[in-house]
Amino acid sequence: MPHRTGQRPAYPEGSTIDWLREEAAERERQRRLHAQRGLRGLWGVILDSAIMWFVAVATGVGIGLAGAWLDILVKWLGDLREGRCAHGFFYNQVTCCSGVDPGELCTEWQTWSETLHVRSIFGQSLLQSFVYMTLAIAFAGSAALLVKTYAPYAFHTGIPEIKAILSGYVLDSFLSPWTLLIKALGLALSVASGLSLGKEGPLVHVSCCMAYLFSKPFHQFRANEAQKRKLLTAAAVAGVSVAFGSPLGGVLFGLEELDLFSDESDVMWRGFVTSVIAAVSLQYVDPFGTSKLVLFEVTGVADTWRAFELVPWLFLAVIGGLLGSLLIKLNAAAAVYRHNSVIRDWPILEVVGFTALTAAVSYLVVFLRVQSSELVANLFQECDPTKGDYHGLCNPTAIWANVFLLILTAVTKVALTAWTFGMMVPAGIFLPTIAIGACLGRAVGLLTQGLHRTYPKSWIFSSCPPDPTVRCVSPGFYAVIGASAMLGGVTRMTISLVVILFELTGALSHVLPIMISVMVAKWVGDAFGKDGIYSIWIAMRQYPWLPPVDFRDRGETVARVMKPAGDLVVVRDEGQCTLRELDTLLKAHAFRGFPVVCGEHLVGYATREKLEAAIEPLLEEDAASGAQRSCTFGAQPNAADAGIVNLALVLEEAILQLRKDVPLELVVSMFQKLNLRHILFTHEGKLTGLITKTDIVWLLTAHFPSLVERNILQAAMYILLLSSPGLT
Amino acid sequence: MPHRTGQRPAYPEGSTIDWLREEAAERERQRRLHAQRGLRGLWGVILDSAIMWFVAVATGVGIGLAGAWLDILVKWLGDLREGRCAHGFFYNQVTCCSGVDPGELCTEWQTWSETLHVRSIFGQSLLQSFVYMTLAIAFAGSAALLVKTYAPYAFHTGIPEIKAILSGYVLDSFLSPWTLLIKALGLALSVASGLSLGKEGPLVHVSCCMAYLFSKPFHQFRANEAQKRKLLTAAAVAGVSVAFGSPLGGVLFGLEELDLFSDESDVMWRGFVTSVIAAVSLQYVDPFGTSKLVLFEVTGVADTWRAFELVPWLFLAVIGGLLGSLLIKLNAAAAVYRHNSVIRDWPILEVVGFTALTAAVSYLVVFLRVQSSELVANLFQECDPTKGDYHGLCNPTAIWANVFLLILTAVTKVALTAWTFGMMVPAGIFLPTIAIGACLGRAVGLLTQGLHRTYPKSWIFSSCPPDPTVRCVSPGFYAVIGASAMLGGVTRMTISLVVILFELTGALSHVLPIMISVMVAKWVGDAFGKDGIYSIWIAMRQYPWLPPVDFRDRGETVARVMKPAGDLVVVRDEGQCTLRELDTLLKAHAFRGFPVVCGEHLVGYATREKLEAAIEPLLEEDAASGAQRSCTFGAQPNAADAGIVNLALVLEEAILQLRKDVPLELVVSMFQKLNLRHILFTHEGKLTGLITKTDIVWLLTAHFPSLVERNILQAAMYILLLSSPGLT
Repeated sequence: MPHRTGQRPAYPEGSTIDWLREEAAERERQRRLHAQRGLRGLWGVILDSAIMWFVAVATGVGIGLAGAWLDILVKWLGDLREGRCAHGFFYNQVTCCSGVDPGELCTEWQTWSETLHVRSIFGQSLLQSFVYMTLAIAFAGSAALLVKTYAPYAFHTGIPEIKAILSGYVLDSFLSPWTLLIKALGLALSVASGLSLGKEGPLVHVSCCMAYLFSKPFHQFRANEAQKRKLLTAAAVAGVSVAFGSPLGGVLFGLEELDLFSDESDVMWRGFVTSVIAAVSLQYVDPFGTSKLVLFEVTGVADTWRAFELVPWLFLAVIGGLLGSLLIKLNAAAAVYRHNSVIRDWPILEVVGFTALTAAVSYLVVFLRVQSSELVANLFQECDPTKGDYHGLCNPTAIWANVFLLILTAVTKVALTAWTFGMMVPAGIFLPTIAIGACLGRAVGLLTQGLHRTYPKSWIFSSCPPDPTVRCVSPGFYAVIGASAMLGGVTRMTISLVVILFELTGALSHVLPIMISVMVAKWVGDAFGKDGIYSIWIAMRQYPWLPPVDFRDRGETVARVMKPAGDLVVVRDEGQCTLRELDTLLKAHAFRGFPVVCGEHLVGYATREKLEAAIEPLLEEDAASGAQRSCTFGAQPNAADAGIVNLALVLEEAILQLRKDVPLELVVSMFQKLNLRHILFTHEGKLTGLITKTDIVWLLTAHFPSLVERNILQAAMYILLLSSPGLT
Repeated sequence: MPHRTGQRPAYPEGSTIDWLREEAAERERQRRLHAQRGLRGLWGVILDSAIMWFVAVATGVGIGLAGAWLDILVKWLGDLREGRCAHGFFYNQVTCCSGVDPGELCTEWQTWSETLHVRSIFGQSLLQSFVYMTLAIAFAGSAALLVKTYAPYAFHTGIPEIKAILSGYVLDSFLSPWTLLIKALGLALSVASGLSLGKEGPLVHVSCCMAYLFSKPFHQFRANEAQKRKLLTAAAVAGVSVAFGSPLGGVLFGLEELDLFSDESDVMWRGFVTSVIAAVSLQYVDPFGTSKLVLFEVTGVADTWRAFELVPWLFLAVIGGLLGSLLIKLNAAAAVYRHNSVIRDWPILEVVGFTALTAAVSYLVVFLRVQSSELVANLFQECDPTKGDYHGLCNPTAIWANVFLLILTAVTKVALTAWTFGMMVPAGIFLPTIAIGACLGRAVGLLTQGLHRTYPKSWIFSSCPPDPTVRCVSPGFYAVIGASAMLGGVTRMTISLVVILFELTGALSHVLPIMISVMVAKWVGDAFGKDGIYSIWIAMRQYPWLPPVDFRDRGETVARVMKPAGDLVVVRDEGQCTLRELDTLLKAHAFRGFPVVCGEHLVGYATREKLEAAIEPLLEEDAASGAQRSCTFGAQPNAADAGIVNLALVLEEAILQLRKDVPLELVVSMFQKLNLRHILFTHEGKLTGLITKTDIVWLLTAHFPSLVERNILQAAMYILLLSSPGLT
């Protein structure tokens, strides 16, 4: 007879964990830990807690350092496309020129044409653009090669997979050390290649890989999938914290987007500590030499904003919602096209070709040529005559030219990003989205500022200070608004976005406009489909993840969706069931679990893993007679005497039973809130039906195109199909 | 036959709402709203959303303005104890002297002895202290009189009740307009009286009252208890935001302490918007004329902290945990003593007497005499010779005297607060706790600073800058650490406390020490009992609120705690049950609901309200024969033909059924997570037992002293007893 909490079979890759079981196992472990008396007991409890904090803190420090190292590597690789340091090959442009006094010309940093002593203008341009493109292709190509060869899961942003894993999906190879290494290295290469992608999302993935690596030596995480996931949540939060330099934003991202804190404030606290430690580690290394945490500091913004500015801001919010939806749809269409065409078989060639195209297009427009992060940093800042003109952005005579260039940049970036996000390289979508929004926002800001300068006496601008030299319109803040709106449209996040952008600007008086723009962009975007980019990718890759949407059943009950009792494969506990019959049943059907009935009455629910674990030793023990032994699941008092095997302990401890005439909405929301795997339906004790998580996922995501790849995810899909008794 | 979502009976005061039912009703309402076609349908949806946002925004603006008004009123009343403005009676000291140039003496503000032309030093002291004490007594006495006469629920902080209400308890009179008015007015009076209390907690109560008032005209809130509670959550968040000038802290307080965001990110978003609007409204009024949101700005703190400082900070954290636990225990003992002694019958006299005592003691020590908020503001600031010496705190020759005075102040305040928090006046415990912690922290900071000044060359201080004029130890920041530790010890909050204090200091580099001190204080405090001050008060007043503690069952199953089937009063659905019998059953037993069984088999669960609502019209309709009609709860196909009343729709839609051998822990955690009212236990369809929320609350809070008052809460307790079938 298997022990109540005996060996718990490991979950196969692609299955969904049973939260109730994992929580029960953890409770049992805690109970045993606390039951030990004396010094040894105390030591056990302290050690247990210390291990947990050690892993969390190590992850925080690790991701903080990794983020800083990545920044330095990207800067160096990126600068290498332009030239090299005469001082030493491994200095980037900033450190190379750091010894130079302000005003003095930095001669140590040499462009490639200077290094190779090319004099003619034509020759210089040709050489520079050739090196720029060659290195871009080399970087992106090697990133794709690394990903394809060593760690296929290191491609893309990783956030959809993290969301699926945190909700209970088992995908350990997604978090392997190889994936960690390749993702970090490939990310540096792909960002430096100048493709339209960011490092933010992949950093979250890297952080989770790190936590997984650090947790592996410790039994408390290795043996419990729920504990592992709680740790991964903290790691994901720390990843966001480092990516945006926003520890609070990270916590709220965890709350809103990863949706796993709901049950325990301990998890939230751990995430917060990890997040702050990661931010402090990043600040300690100080990769940009500014000793500031914020990536895109907003400077010189006017203290107050005027009511008339709400008009351009609302315009930006609407544009952000529309363009965000468009970007999502284009990206999904590109992914489906790639999946169904010949491109799929040549991923590295695709990356190389598209990098060449991106580099060629980008080299022509100055705002596209610079690194996206540099572009955003400049767009967010107000013009300050003492600090240079930011690629001509601050030239007051070239407003129309700048507006045209900014809009051109935005439109080009939408097209480039839609294709790039999904190629075989690590790629985040946050930064390109911010860049697109910032370009549009700055353009609108420049126009508004131009209008104010041309008609300073108009009634519209009556709330501006009368002194025309005082700044009334801050185009840099318009860029922030544009970025907020665009992010709102693409990710459909709300509060965590606002907090991230709030930690960037720091001014409480400017939170309201950011909030309004995010909210309006989300509303506008929701009119064209409620799902953010991550939900779409989860659905396209068919992970068993329930979107937190408000499902409306229009009066339907669960009866239509559930698998009725007559169609279910059940274990009959009517006294004459032998072990051999059970074994045959298990071999004949691939379902994950079976309801146990006596007559029509429901006795319980037994999972495949537990049934197999209970039967196999008995069958092996006595191959001949063992198979003939009868078994029962009821608590028959004289079962042991009669030689009947009592399998009552195989049944699940807690099964949820509902009536089949409950509204479908209620069932969907129970699955969403309770992390369930199945619900049984009974009427007066008689089994009437069964519904599984997979049924609900299919119900909610049926309208998405599917994108399950043959080679990588075939196995996962196969298992998914099996786990759904309703769909064979 | 009652309609599926027909008239839903209102919940009586003191009951617990059924979240599933309320959510279902809201879903049904939304469905009907969205089912309407055309412009009218669109208008309905927009109006519905607009009403929700209108109420949320109105609450935000309302509490922001109320908070500002309260600050102004308190400042004026408080200053009135010292003197008056010759300019006009209604100016406080700051506004009275606002026209005076810096350096010039303010002659417009006159102390009472100046006004009455008392010349002798003795006469002046006597007059000043007499006015001080008389006004203190008058303020506190009138606050108590107002509370006692008009709104008994306006006493105390209100946070325990808010927590109970948000978790589903029905206590509408706690949110009445009268309570709103009396609480706001009484709060101003009691704060101005100089009693050891703060305005933070009560502001949360005021905010909730306001939201309740604003929501009353609208059917969507009035008719749905769940929607009302979601709105109240946003209001509570806004209250914290205004109380501490910390919009993000408010959101995280809502998450951690009120624990209601878990299900819907919409609720969180609404809370965030309300919170920011409240903060902006407060900032707009700018009650202190500083145009800063922060209450206790920390200035002049050194940029970095040194490792040796961790020693005094850890010491402060341990002290905070110990003293916090002591304060909780003293406060609970005081409450029990008050409840069991004759004092209970003379609440106003108690307030007057204790105010006199407080005023007499406070007048002797300068740190006690000033308003707590002013004291904290000064303790948090570094000494700056240009800004005055803060009641002698910055006198470098009086370190020992100051340390003695600070410790004396802290100890006195612990004693005063332990009694004050629970008297018949509106009173928050946040500010006194902060003040106690800040005093201790500043004392430790002064000692450390003194040590550094005496032995600047010691190896301990080797990390300090060699220049002795540069500040190495910042006693103001030690006060912040002390306040964090004390708050951690008293409230046992973690992340929201850190964020609130983080928004006060603003320095990311100093979050780590704050975090460590809160964590250590909580750990130390938890060793003396896991519950924070609010949990204790909830338990003492016996609200049906489940503390989010980790319950450990030591291997016990639910079988011991549940009410076994044999002891339950059930409705038998065996064909011959008549309406009269049902009516008799309902009248004979006061339980909230009844399991319906057929033989031993569970058919469903029917609540008293729904049963009564279904039966009464039938009985009235036809008094003679109606009562003789049989009824059934099963879906018998030919029931209608035979004239049998089909009550199947009276049964609860979703009932949770478990097996009775599940661990008790699991059942407790299901109640905690799912907001359930009861769980039924079945075995093969047969009813084996029942457990209600009240049973679980009693299980978890049995170790607390009870404090249910005869007059006010007797009714609530009576209903509570009734609602527990297991305890009659």
